[in-house]
Amino acid sequence: MKLQTIIPDHERLFLDKDVPEAYKTDHSWKDVAAVKAVALPELEQEIIDLVTYANQEDLTIIARGAGTGVAGSQVPTKGGEVIIDVHRMNRILDLDEETMTLTVEPGVKLQEIQEFVERKGYFYPPDPGSKNSTIGGNIATNAGGMRAVKYGTTRDYVRELDVVLPDGQKATLGSLNIKDSSGYDLKDLFIGSEGTLGITTRIKLKVLPMPKYKQSVILAFDSLKAATNGVLSILKNGVEPAALELFERGTIEYSEKFTEKKLPSQKGDAYILMTLDSNEQEDLSRRVSFTENLLKGQAAEILPLSTPEEEEKAWFLRDHILVALMQFTEFEMLDEVVPINRFAEMISYTKELQEKHGINVINFGHAGDGNIHTVLMKEGMDEAAWQTKRKAYLDDLYSKVHELGGLPSAEHGIGVIKKGYLEKMSQPVEIQLMRKVKRAIDPDNRLNPGKVF
Amino acid sequence: MKLQTIIPDHERLFLDKDVPEAYKTDHSWKDVAAVKAVALPELEQEIIDLVTYANQEDLTIIARGAGTGVAGSQVPTKGGEVIIDVHRMNRILDLDEETMTLTVEPGVKLQEIQEFVERKGYFYPPDPGSKNSTIGGNIATNAGGMRAVKYGTTRDYVRELDVVLPDGQKATLGSLNIKDSSGYDLKDLFIGSEGTLGITTRIKLKVLPMPKYKQSVILAFDSLKAATNGVLSILKNGVEPAALELFERGTIEYSEKFTEKKLPSQKGDAYILMTLDSNEQEDLSRRVSFTENLLKGQAAEILPLSTPEEEEKAWFLRDHILVALMQFTEFEMLDEVVPINRFAEMISYTKELQEKHGINVINFGHAGDGNIHTVLMKEGMDEAAWQTKRKAYLDDLYSKVHELGGLPSAEHGIGVIKKGYLEKMSQPVEIQLMRKVKRAIDPDNRLNPGKVF
Ligand SMILES: Cc1cc2nc3c(=O)[nH]c(=O)nc-3n(C[C@H](O)[C@H](O)[C@H](O)COP(=O)(O)OP(=O)(O)OC[C@H]3O[C@@H](n4cnc5c(N)ncnc54)[C@H](O)[C@@H]3O)c2cc1C
Ligand SMILES: Cc1cc2nc3c(=O)[nH]c(=O)nc-3n(C[C@H](O)[C@H](O)[C@H](O)COP(=O)(O)OP(=O)(O)OC[C@H]3O[C@@H](n4cnc5c(N)ncnc54)[C@H](O)[C@@H]3O)c2cc1C
Repeated sequence: MKLQTIIPDHERLFLDKDVPEAYKTDHSWKDVAAVKAVALPELEQEIIDLVTYANQEDLTIIARGAGTGVAGSQVPTKGGEVIIDVHRMNRILDLDEETMTLTVEPGVKLQEIQEFVERKGYFYPPDPGSKNSTIGGNIATNAGGMRAVKYGTTRDYVRELDVVLPDGQKATLGSLNIKDSSGYDLKDLFIGSEGTLGITTRIKLKVLPMPKYKQSVILAFDSLKAATNGVLSILKNGVEPAALELFERGTIEYSEKFTEKKLPSQKGDAYILMTLDSNEQEDLSRRVSFTENLLKGQAAEILPLSTPEEEEKAWFLRDHILVALMQFTEFEMLDEVVPINRFAEMISYTKELQEKHGINVINFGHAGDGNIHTVLMKEGMDEAAWQTKRKAYLDDLYSKVHELGGLPSAEHGIGVIKKGYLEKMSQPVEIQLMRKVKRAIDPDNRLNPGKVF
Repeated sequence: MKLQTIIPDHERLFLDKDVPEAYKTDHSWKDVAAVKAVALPELEQEIIDLVTYANQEDLTIIARGAGTGVAGSQVPTKGGEVIIDVHRMNRILDLDEETMTLTVEPGVKLQEIQEFVERKGYFYPPDPGSKNSTIGGNIATNAGGMRAVKYGTTRDYVRELDVVLPDGQKATLGSLNIKDSSGYDLKDLFIGSEGTLGITTRIKLKVLPMPKYKQSVILAFDSLKAATNGVLSILKNGVEPAALELFERGTIEYSEKFTEKKLPSQKGDAYILMTLDSNEQEDLSRRVSFTENLLKGQAAEILPLSTPEEEEKAWFLRDHILVALMQFTEFEMLDEVVPINRFAEMISYTKELQEKHGINVINFGHAGDGNIHTVLMKEGMDEAAWQTKRKAYLDDLYSKVHELGGLPSAEHGIGVIKKGYLEKMSQPVEIQLMRKVKRAIDPDNRLNPGKVF
């Protein structure tokens, strides 16, 4: 069989030199490798045929959604790969209100899912900043986002996965059953495996009833340290936020410039942006007042956002921090996570290191989860100096993460850029176990080779 | 090395003929096989040494907790196994209030965990009827119980697992980090794997703040069908029960006899026993009244239990259904689960089949999860007739479960008794995947061979 027979449509197949450059890099990975082909299937059968073809020709495959990944997990690194870009498989197939299950193809964008279920009164909680990412990509990276502190990550909303395995066979993992002690939990093994075990072709997602009321609050603090303490107070005192974000002024300024909007609070050096939700208006108001009392001595300003427009604006600004940084400056963004009781220590260590290594850093992140996106600013630095300094900074930073019981990635994945650090921070036996599982399911190392470990 | 060197203490080692009979069967499995040894380690190092010994001598191993399993997963079926009974590793090691994490050894009993954290104001939600089961066993079977409808199963409360692998190496799976996209999710692979991949030696569990208020309600119905409809009404209308059990009068009568207590309601043929919990007394009262209004036309009696004693009695009766059946009669208990919208159809099918096959059945179960324990009564039947009839009944029942998108086990595990049905109800490729994973991690088939698939 030829690729042109499997994907007969010109628009859906790029070969060799015709492969658009956009497929070859992401924000974290700039080494360009030659790609054999990019195929854009619209049917599961086409994926099966593509994988079968790759087996016959002994080619390696990379699955791809929207390409918003920031760990190099969707980019070619070896050369000669076939990229299977599923973003045209983008139909919402069914909303089953009896089991509260949404069936979708892997290329559906997160934002479409959120808006679709919202129109029907339901709620899909996972909420990464990248609303254009696909659900297939979200599952492959176990994407987190803004609401994990209360609602968990993508993993917690996947009921069933159809996957094409490395040998071209199809399997269905998981089910609509609420409880399951019937054999190994293969579904969770595939979630977060960054396209190294199978290609997702169909997903059944769990949705929730939409909470009736919500209220966002901005809290401004004079220092990062004060803001970090604010986070811990909120978590310890039963405020139960649905979202709890922390960002330094330095990060939101980029977003203000990019979106041409202003954050409703301009006081302070660091902010908490928080949403509470509830089915009872009274309960919500009580928790907002409680937060105000709790933090009024510590915060420079506490601003409950009183209109939906204000609320939307604040979250729009938050969501665009990363895009804005990408637009205006050069930097490296991390995704470290530590147990929540070590969060304050971790974040203040990122600042200590800036003096030591002569790199400015600014932080934002999903504070409620202990997940920090530390941003190392390259600014005007020349490439050689930058490479030396960033390496020294990262070595120190990840040592600390490890010491505090943390991990190199909370939600972006390991991809190609954090492999070394994952290995350093794991016991050899754990990496061996992962390799054994990979080899068992993909003995020819056909799917996304060289990623994760 | 000799077994006596590893376990020098006489009381902690039984060899060959001295192995107590209790190790050889469970309620579901009566074929007695010869056991080489039962060792009762008190230290992780002893487990490592035992596994190393088994590798040297080419022996197979079965891990065991309290032996309350009801699927034959903890019993010897081949002959010549070494049973590693961890129930003496029963220390609660630490409660870390900052991360809300409890560290325990695998032999700690569920009830001890519940009571320990309760005394400190915390809550460990998983709640199987078998309060004497061990946490290690609960994890290996992904035990469910009464509160899964709101709080999930054992899986959802495991943060970190220390395991001894089939080759004697030790690994730590999972972590205290709230989010994790750092490599494969091995922790969830091991949970529910029925001791076939590793032996758990230490666990970090997540605990929650104890909800401030709770209220249980008994609802009596004239028929099983009416009770089933009641379950669906409760689930659909936002009552949000923390526990939602269904049982036929026929089951609770055994428990009344065994416990010498009476269920507060004596009306009706089938019951719902439900608990609501909340941090607001008002919210709780509102939901109780709402339920009363919702079901007053359908229920024969609705009885909010007004004292802690009444509440305790009702749940004590529920928890002892299975023990009571074991005491007074001969039966086979199932653990089928179907998607919640198929629950009514499934339960009424169990009754249709009783006529067809001439076996009486009574049902109880975790209705909120779509999980039914159908009990096939052997009563006076002779063994040959029983075997023929039960087989015919099960074939029909599991065909229906499969047709409705269900699974053979919600919470007890597959063990040895449901292997055939799991295979029938799965695609071959799924069983192959499980086998591949097993072979990768346990190439010599050393741990609990012949179980699950
Ligand atoms: C501005 C911005 C903000 C972001 N914010 C967040 C955030 O808040 N939280 C967060 O978690 N992430 C965030 N990310 C990272 C990124 O959006 C996520 O990792 C996302 O899940 C990737 O989805 P994608 O469709 O773009 O996947 P891709 O980038 O195309 O691929 C990512 C990985 O998924 C695999 N994959 C994709 N589709 C499939 C499939 N069908 N089957 C099997 N494997 C597949 C790929 O092989 C690759 O390993 C952000 C990124 C950007 C650029
Ligand atoms: C009266 C009664 C009521 C019950 N109610 C419920 C209920 O409501 N919900 C429910 O889910 N179950 C219930 N069960 C079933 C049973 O209690 C559970 O399966 C329980 O989790 C088994 O725990 P155990 O310690 O007795 O394990 P065992 O029976 O000793 O072993 C069960 C499995 O776990 C493995 N195992 C045990 N310890 C370890 C370890 N340290 N490392 C690795 N593997 C290990 C064994 O190899 C075996 O595969 C009930 C049983 C009874 C008798």
